[in-house]
Amino acid sequence: MMASSSSYNSPCAACKFLRRKCLSGCIFAPYFPPQDPQKFINVHKIFGASNVGKLLNEVLPHQREDAVNSLAYEAEARVRDPVYGSVGVISFLQRQVDRLQKDLDSANADLIRYRRNTTPSSRLSSIQLPPYVYHNNVNNRPWNCHYPSNNSRGGGGDGGGSGGI
Amino acid sequence: MMASSSSYNSPCAACKFLRRKCLSGCIFAPYFPPQDPQKFINVHKIFGASNVGKLLNEVLPHQREDAVNSLAYEAEARVRDPVYGSVGVISFLQRQVDRLQKDLDSANADLIRYRRNTTPSSRLSSIQLPPYVYHNNVNNRPWNCHYPSNNSRGGGGDGGGSGGI
Repeated sequence: MMASSSSYNSPCAACKFLRRKCLSGCIFAPYFPPQDPQKFINVHKIFGASNVGKLLNEVLPHQREDAVNSLAYEAEARVRDPVYGSVGVISFLQRQVDRLQKDLDSANADLIRYRRNTTPSSRLSSIQLPPYVYHNNVNNRPWNCHYPSNNSRGGGGDGGGSGGI
Repeated sequence: MMASSSSYNSPCAACKFLRRKCLSGCIFAPYFPPQDPQKFINVHKIFGASNVGKLLNEVLPHQREDAVNSLAYEAEARVRDPVYGSVGVISFLQRQVDRLQKDLDSANADLIRYRRNTTPSSRLSSIQLPPYVYHNNVNNRPWNCHYPSNNSRGGGGDGGGSGGI
């Protein structure tokens, strides 16, 4: 946990940006130190100071630092990519998971083929197939993100962004 | 592209929620139809109507539907998980990528071992190692997301959410 506003000689980055007095107990002060003004500028631009304050009051005190940092990550992603924001990162990672799973399935199929074709007298027969041959499943996903696809980037698209996670 | 507000008998979901007249050319109408009020309620709660309107005006018209859908996805993720939002999905996917890459590296190492130990007279010598044995690289990431780790969930954490993507 970072120091409260009373530890600073200057107001926190939020109060400085909003041109208001940084009072003791300021909800922003522990998470928006004056040394990092851009962090607040980004979350203010994307979420609005009022919404960030409301969200901080809705979560438990020990969760607030994580909440602010995840908001700051999302805000920076949206500033960099106004169309897709952090959803662009999710889309990229999901495609990477799909590609890796496909490659792993191929590798596992080859390992099974090697093992089947190896004669019993071969010293290779002692090699056991590792557990990852069977336990990976591309359908084992706790979320369902269909957005955005490669094809939808740059126009039209199939949307579906409100799909649950 | 969805129909404009003039095609509806009722105002768009945004104007209905904000209790204002839905004029022709309303920036929200094509993307927030009255049939889906929750989509606007979520983005309004998380981003604020004003910020969504500003963002829509900043991107090109053909990018607006994707922008709204990605905002709706992020907003729903934040409503479901106020602490981590869509960053929780990114964290989960990144761990899955790391696990799959590790499993693939192990499978590839075993394939190389099988091939090296196979005698030239074996019919297996004709099996070529597939290209995925060499071309995967866990460091091949266009973004850098250190947040949140498993260990940081539920308190404290190492932050770092403002890392670039």
